[in-house]
Amino acid sequence: MEFEDITSLRVQINRALADFLQNEVSYLKVIGDELIPVSSALTHFLLDNGKRLRPIFAALGFIGAGGELSEEHVKALSCLELVHVCALIHDDVMDASDTRRGAPSIHRQFEILHSSNSLQGSSAQFGIASAILLGDLALVWSAKMLHESGIASGSLLKSLPLYDEMRVELMAGQYLDVYEQALASRNVERSLKVARFKSGKYSIERPLYFGAALAPSNTLHNFEIYSNYGLPLGEAFQLRDDIMGVFGDPTITGKPAGDDLREGKSTALIALTLEKCSTAQRRIFDQYFGDQSIDQHGIEILRELILETGAAAQVEKIISDKTEIACEAIKDSAITKTAQAALETMAIAATKRSS
Amino acid sequence: MEFEDITSLRVQINRALADFLQNEVSYLKVIGDELIPVSSALTHFLLDNGKRLRPIFAALGFIGAGGELSEEHVKALSCLELVHVCALIHDDVMDASDTRRGAPSIHRQFEILHSSNSLQGSSAQFGIASAILLGDLALVWSAKMLHESGIASGSLLKSLPLYDEMRVELMAGQYLDVYEQALASRNVERSLKVARFKSGKYSIERPLYFGAALAPSNTLHNFEIYSNYGLPLGEAFQLRDDIMGVFGDPTITGKPAGDDLREGKSTALIALTLEKCSTAQRRIFDQYFGDQSIDQHGIEILRELILETGAAAQVEKIISDKTEIACEAIKDSAITKTAQAALETMAIAATKRSS
Repeated sequence: MEFEDITSLRVQINRALADFLQNEVSYLKVIGDELIPVSSALTHFLLDNGKRLRPIFAALGFIGAGGELSEEHVKALSCLELVHVCALIHDDVMDASDTRRGAPSIHRQFEILHSSNSLQGSSAQFGIASAILLGDLALVWSAKMLHESGIASGSLLKSLPLYDEMRVELMAGQYLDVYEQALASRNVERSLKVARFKSGKYSIERPLYFGAALAPSNTLHNFEIYSNYGLPLGEAFQLRDDIMGVFGDPTITGKPAGDDLREGKSTALIALTLEKCSTAQRRIFDQYFGDQSIDQHGIEILRELILETGAAAQVEKIISDKTEIACEAIKDSAITKTAQAALETMAIAATKRSS
Repeated sequence: MEFEDITSLRVQINRALADFLQNEVSYLKVIGDELIPVSSALTHFLLDNGKRLRPIFAALGFIGAGGELSEEHVKALSCLELVHVCALIHDDVMDASDTRRGAPSIHRQFEILHSSNSLQGSSAQFGIASAILLGDLALVWSAKMLHESGIASGSLLKSLPLYDEMRVELMAGQYLDVYEQALASRNVERSLKVARFKSGKYSIERPLYFGAALAPSNTLHNFEIYSNYGLPLGEAFQLRDDIMGVFGDPTITGKPAGDDLREGKSTALIALTLEKCSTAQRRIFDQYFGDQSIDQHGIEILRELILETGAAAQVEKIISDKTEIACEAIKDSAITKTAQAALETMAIAATKRSS
């Protein structure tokens, strides 16, 4: 198995995930037919969509450290996608989000299952309970997929501390985010700190480290270079996400237009807008931002304000600066040429304007 | 470190958990002071209470397979308590239970933190989000505690498949329970199946297997004996729990008196009661059971009915029969004498009447 390009890598990751899931689904069926909806919901959630960003970064971290990808290694690093499935399913419960990737979120799916089968008790509560368990199951499956991937035990043992640290940071970062939303401090520094944990570390830096740790004869003295690439790129990536939450096309985001505005989500983009607002603009902002019932007109007003203050342009500037810093960090570095090229491609793809 | 008795074992487990937690709490503090409430809540939840049933069974599974407990092994098997912390925290969100062990449940604690600090958004939603993340964190910590316990890598690698299977079964069993409650089928067989997964396998059989897998030179040909002991005992243990949910003293259960009656919880005890009810009794049952607002009088009526039908006596009979079967299974078996004696003690302690 040789690295051709990112698309073929994604195909291999998808195949590894599908194979793993098939086994687990059979196992659940033995426990009881009651679990068929669980299997079905998780299968669709995992396989219908997903950019496989974290497994891809792990693969590139692996290749960058001189590793040659085998089928077993692809299995091992694909486990990160299941951590992500847990994070997304639980995130939707925490945000009470009704949609994910254009479809009902998992808790909504089970809420619907409950009410359409006229089951006893609260449908909403059944939806929440099911989504919590499905997320937990995805998290446990992730570990199982890694453990039984078939890689050499030395590599497995080396990867575990990084795997654990990444998951602890993820949960800590998620709490920081939830707390930040509740504080509603709209502080640029604080928003960027949350972005650092949620995206920089969890989505990019840690997957790269994890992949490097899996490489049987790691050629890197240390993984610092992956931090120099991953952290700025992670921030850029999160900032792109902030922009998409305000200006993104619903057919791409899978969420209603301007969803972050309706939710009143504290992001660096919003914090910057407020720093640059005049008093008059601030009054308009406060009138619409975080109002669950705003219509397209209100969304347009907020969008215009974010553009007028120059906050959007400044965020675009930070995104391109950080992406450049990330790309500079890997150029002519100790990581393999193949990985350098692929990481540059990924940096540009993950942060580019979608329009 | 020698096995003296279960009490001293519990002390060692508590020490291992406290040491582990201290490190993790320092780590979270480095990420941010915002995480202090997370550390504090989890520390109290983990260390203030808990019978350590699963680590103890794991230790006895280990000793039974000829293992000699070292400090590292105690660390490794204590990780099961953190899986249980996750299960309990998430369970309280799923059931919308306000109390746990006489104190506010985790989601309630964070709901209170939110409202007493006048944070933005819904306090209830903040409580749920925090509890989901704290449970996730406990689950991840469990794996970290196992991985970094310092046991020989051969033992660690042997334990992982059992550790994974146990956690998958736990989540599947929890879903079966949630679904069973929603079906409200009140079927004895179905209730016992849920009990088998939730208690038999998760609380007893799997911890015993897990412990045996950790034993460096395992003296057992297979772990079947642990199933012969664990599965009937688990059912007995769950049935004792059912009885406690109806008749238990709130100072022991940490839940309001008759809580399961108010919740309308489907258990084998309730299913048996319904099988034995006359039509007149059934009318009375339906009037009170599952009514969130029933008072002490209503609870007494339901209790009397459960006694009158003979369901309680029959459940007591099953408990003592199953406990005896469990104890017979280990007598003069291949497991070490020390473990035989301790497992008998545990069987009696875990299923005895509390009054």
